[in-house]
Amino acid sequence: MPLEIERKFLVGSFEPPATAVRQHIEQGYIAIKDDGTEVRLRRIGGGRVLGVKRGKGEGPAVRVEVERELGEEEFTELWPATAGARLAKDRYTFDAAGVTVHLDVYQGGLAGLRTAEVEFDSTAEAEGFTPPDWFGTEITGVTAYKNQTLATRGLPGE
Amino acid sequence: MPLEIERKFLVGSFEPPATAVRQHIEQGYIAIKDDGTEVRLRRIGGGRVLGVKRGKGEGPAVRVEVERELGEEEFTELWPATAGARLAKDRYTFDAAGVTVHLDVYQGGLAGLRTAEVEFDSTAEAEGFTPPDWFGTEITGVTAYKNQTLATRGLPGE
Repeated sequence: MPLEIERKFLVGSFEPPATAVRQHIEQGYIAIKDDGTEVRLRRIGGGRVLGVKRGKGEGPAVRVEVERELGEEEFTELWPATAGARLAKDRYTFDAAGVTVHLDVYQGGLAGLRTAEVEFDSTAEAEGFTPPDWFGTEITGVTAYKNQTLATRGLPGE
Repeated sequence: MPLEIERKFLVGSFEPPATAVRQHIEQGYIAIKDDGTEVRLRRIGGGRVLGVKRGKGEGPAVRVEVERELGEEEFTELWPATAGARLAKDRYTFDAAGVTVHLDVYQGGLAGLRTAEVEFDSTAEAEGFTPPDWFGTEITGVTAYKNQTLATRGLPGE
């Protein structure tokens, strides 16, 4: 069962290494529930994914995640259901500080925001992680910086 | 792209033929949106399905539907997200009046309700269909009898 255990940080000016893999991501939310459950459509690289995440109540950083590939027509037909809850970003993936980092550079109305996300295999590993210098404020579990919040309300304080 | 074109009717006392295929269905809704979009988990027979339906605005009986099989653990982990929006029914499937009929016999708080559902390949075919004698009031597109409404509000008038 895929569990998602991650920590997330703001990032200032940082250039991803030349070896980073860059993927363009467009995602929209079909549903966002009060308990944190979300149903998401994501276009990433050449793929299209339907995903459902549910908070497990064991902490903000642990969630159950189920994902399935969609066909182009399926994706296109469902996409209108995400109106008003979308965002776009470029994701740079690379190894740093002994872990794999996803550096997300947001676009459109969220331009200027950059975050770094690190996924772990266990909560112990997550807690033992020492962020590198170029990681800024930790925003793990901070509602205002959840992608579902950014997609519907924009940048915090705007 | 799977389109769902169907008509639905109330049914009084009717015994399904002995040849009918009987399946027990338990379903719950992860999300039900104002525009009719729904995200559903369904356990049917030995299968487990995640489904997303979106109304296409071409009429109440035409919807886009995307379904994917889930593993038992995936289903079990997501099921709590359907709390307060569940129903159970037995579905009898058989041929009658020149079409395939799904006769749903609802259970639990919905006991006493029976509906017959017929799916068509086109709206022309749907409009040309003559319901047999034992079909009662047509409830195609009637909000109170939608499964998403029954699952959250119970029987109409209660």
